[in-house]
This record gives sequence, C-alpha cells and structure tokens, in this order.
Amino acid sequence: MKLCTFKTPGGLVGVGLVTAGGVIRVADHLSAAPRDMIGLIGEWQHWQEPLRRLAQVQPADFALDEVTLLAPVPRPGKILGIGLNYADHVAESGMATPADQLWFAMMNTSANGPCAPIDLPLVSEQLDYEAEMVFVIGKRCRHVSREQAPQVIFGYCAGNDVSVRDWQLRTSQFVLGKSFDGHAPFGPWLVTPDEVGNPHELGIRCFVNDEKRQDSNTRELIFDCYQQVEHLSKVMTLEPGDVIYTGTPGGIGGGFKPPRWLREGDRVRVEIDRLGAIENVVRAERVAGDGHGR
Amino acid sequence: MKLCTFKTPGGLVGVGLVTAGGVIRVADHLSAAPRDMIGLIGEWQHWQEPLRRLAQVQPADFALDEVTLLAPVPRPGKILGIGLNYADHVAESGMATPADQLWFAMMNTSANGPCAPIDLPLVSEQLDYEAEMVFVIGKRCRHVSREQAPQVIFGYCAGNDVSVRDWQLRTSQFVLGKSFDGHAPFGPWLVTPDEVGNPHELGIRCFVNDEKRQDSNTRELIFDCYQQVEHLSKVMTLEPGDVIYTGTPGGIGGGFKPPRWLREGDRVRVEIDRLGAIENVVRAERVAGDGHGR
Repeated sequence: MKLCTFKTPGGLVGVGLVTAGGVIRVADHLSAAPRDMIGLIGEWQHWQEPLRRLAQVQPADFALDEVTLLAPVPRPGKILGIGLNYADHVAESGMATPADQLWFAMMNTSANGPCAPIDLPLVSEQLDYEAEMVFVIGKRCRHVSREQAPQVIFGYCAGNDVSVRDWQLRTSQFVLGKSFDGHAPFGPWLVTPDEVGNPHELGIRCFVNDEKRQDSNTRELIFDCYQQVEHLSKVMTLEPGDVIYTGTPGGIGGGFKPPRWLREGDRVRVEIDRLGAIENVVRAERVAGDGHGR
Repeated sequence: MKLCTFKTPGGLVGVGLVTAGGVIRVADHLSAAPRDMIGLIGEWQHWQEPLRRLAQVQPADFALDEVTLLAPVPRPGKILGIGLNYADHVAESGMATPADQLWFAMMNTSANGPCAPIDLPLVSEQLDYEAEMVFVIGKRCRHVSREQAPQVIFGYCAGNDVSVRDWQLRTSQFVLGKSFDGHAPFGPWLVTPDEVGNPHELGIRCFVNDEKRQDSNTRELIFDCYQQVEHLSKVMTLEPGDVIYTGTPGGIGGGFKPPRWLREGDRVRVEIDRLGAIENVVRAERVAGDGHGR
C-alpha cells in the first residue's frame, strides 16, 4: 500500500491511499479511522485490512495532480539521520569511516513536503542536497534485534537531508546545519514493506536541474535499516511516525571542487526505485518583519 | 506564576498553578482553558490574567505532596541543549572552548518528571549528571534578536541533562548519549519571568546523595539565554513548549579521576535559586521481554 498525507483542492488535510487512479481520501470511506498518519500507524493492525480492500475496490476521489502532497508524517516526534553511511560519501567528506553508527537529529520544524520549496537561508550560502532512503517506525518499541526490526518498520519513502554545510561544520555537532526550517522534505508517500520487497536493493538517484549528481543503490548502505533500528532502540523508545534518514551516497554538492552549492531556483529531485520521487525547488528565505511572526 | 503538569491522586493529568498552599487544578476553575501545558502556553495572552487572579484568590485543590509532578511539558516538540557553556566545565571536559554555540539535541522520549526515576541503561555504566537551568519557549518565533528574546521565553526551571558518556563520545555526535529514555528530567514547575527576576544571576547546585558536586551561578554562562534564542532562531522556528537546556557548570562525575558514575540507588538533586529543585533516583533499566512492549 501507498499512504500519503495530502491537502484537497478545498484545503482539507487528510490521509490518503494512493492507487493507480489517484488518491482515495480515507476519512470519506472509513469514517472511524484516525485522521492523521501517526494515529493511523498507531492503529495499523485494525485498519490494514479495511484499507487493503478499499485500495482494491474504490475509485480514486482525486487525481494526483489535483491534490498537494504533504510530508507523509507532517510533524514527526523524532527525525534522526545517520551520517557517513555509504563508502563513496565517506571518501568525499574527508572524514574517517566511523567505527560505529553516527547519528544526528533534525528538529520537528524541518519536516517538509515532497514538492514544497526549500529555503536558501538568510544566514548561509552553503546549501546542499543529500538523497536518502527514509523509513518510518510503525510500532512503539525498545531493544529490537536486527532480526525483529522489519516488524517495527511501517514504510519507506524518499528524502532529502538538506544540509547547510557551514552551520553543520562550524561546531562538532551537526544538528543546527541539519535543522533549518523545511530542510527535511520526504515522501511522496509511505510504501509499506510488502510493496517494497528488499529495501536494501533499490536504486537511489539525485538530480539537480536534471543533472544527475548522485546514483547509487541501497545495497551499498554500510549499516542497513535493520541494524539502524537495533542500534537506536538500545537507547530510546521508537514510536509510530518516527522518521529515520538512512544516509546519503557520494555526489553531494560540497564534494565538488569548488563546491556546487544549491542556488535560488534550483530544482532538486530525489528518486528511489519502487518508492517514488520528491522534487523541491530552492527559493530565497522570506522573513517575517518583526521576528515574531512565524 | 508557577505552572506545573501534575497527576492527581486519582490519576488524572492536568495543568496546575502552584501556590504557597499547594496546587490549583486549572481545569476545575477555568473550564475553557487548554488542558495541556503547550496549549496553555500557546494561548497565554488570553489566560495570563485569569490565572493570575486565580492564584491570588483560590485555595489550593491539592497539597503538593498529594500529587505527582510530571515534566512541565510532558512531550516537548524540541529539546535542545548547549554544550561547554561554563568555563569550569570546558576545562574538566578536556575539550576546546567552542568559538561558537555548541548545540545538540535530545529526543522527545527523554523528557521526564522532576521526581521520576532515572534508568541506569542496560548498555552502559557511564551514567552522569549535569545540573542545568532550563527555559521553555513561549511564542512561535524565528529570527529573534538578543534584545527581543526575553519576550519569547515563557518560563524557567531546573533540569538534569543526564548523559551516558560512552554513548555520547563513541562517535562525534552527542545525540544518542543525550537521548536515553527519561534522561531529560526537568521541573519542578515553570516559573514565569516576572517571578524569576534576572535569570542570569541564580545559584545552581547539584547534589548526589547529599554530596555537593556542582555549585555555580547562571551569571557564569558563556552564552546567556537570550543569545541562545537569537542563535537558534536564525536556524529554526521555535514554538511554545520547546525546551532549552542552557549548559552545565563544572563538577560532573566524568570530571573526577577516576570518574564517579551514577549507580543504582543514587539520588541526584538539582536546585536553582528561585526556580526550585528536582530530585531523581537511579534505578536499573527494566526491559520488556520481547522488545516490542514499550
């Protein structure tokens, strides 16, 4: 199944089932179902079969181009990303291969839709892309083994771990450079594992204005998704809707000499086999006048 | 005003006003007021005066020792902490004084109550304390100057930035070592700025089993609260209920030779002038049997 969060032409936000014909608005057909993605994931055992039937028999309520796709989980409880998780990216970064999984966080205000603009910040010109496979947690869990991990993953999608390099590297900690507003677009929808097949055998590509910049396969991940769940869940309870960025392959803008930072108007597309594509256009950040408006 | 989130003897969770006599349950007297702290902070302009009157005229509904105080914001949207922000702590850490504010994140599942137990993790013995002043954001804001910053701070309290040192330092990124479940206790309640006076002139102390380990004053902060708001808001939108840990003074367990890690049964108390104290006892982590239970 493919599940999205979307806005109707009339401005209503809801959860949708994406089929060949378009989007089925879940609330219109299963009125008792939770209205948001985290709620639906939390009750997945109950809604999985009704939704599967709905996808088979129900014509779409909207064509895909009639709706606006939002981040599948608009406001995740956690967004975590793993760094230096493809060998070619480790090489271009000039950093040492980490002996251990290298995790950093993004803030909740970074979450963004698959087609939303990305801001070129007022405070930096070093805006960069990172194509990544993203997965979303399906069950509240802790101390999950690598073997059990597939059971707690709800679905997969494409993501761009947009990075402001000077802010990422001005101190030892990456979090601010990874947490600019809207710099974690993902989508276009969540694909459930039964439709993904092996998540560690998917081509992943990034284009900037149709120029291919990244081209790899998730089989190149140093630490795979299941190892990531095992590691993170030693530390913390993972919960439905938590979002995990699984690392980027080589080819980032900062890896070129001189670096090729993103500029206003650039169109950045991340596509992953079987998961779909997201495409975000860079715009200049707009400020609210008094610093309090947003 | 002092505002808490608390559980009644009957198990109901709500927002309370803390007075000399105990706790006034807000929902019992202002039935239209939001039932949770983030909601109340978001509508503060509307509820500030009614609450002030209530605090003056209303006898407490519960004695303090009848209720369980929870984290004032039970599930913050963001929890951020600044590292190496007191000169004596920089020295004991063996790290260089950062030229810039050094920020890291804690996950939402780290938030914990002022009297709740702290887990000694299954995966580490290097459990450490960090007494910190904490502040909570009051208004949705971006690009706030240092001068404007006091207007977006809702209140202050005490916090313990509990740290698992080996996990904090096994990679370059601190986030996992700072994000174990329940390792961000704070409280006991939020004190609004009018009752705090100058937040940069408060004694801050940490005791482990009545032995004083940390003893400093918030005037020693390298980057003060207002500079912190200015810096963070260049990057991201801050929102009501976001929680900021402002750094710890010297005296952490890891600074002793040999290190004095926290052990099961240790009682850790953080107290700050005018803000109150939190006290958490270390217990061994308990595991759910199948890795899925939590």
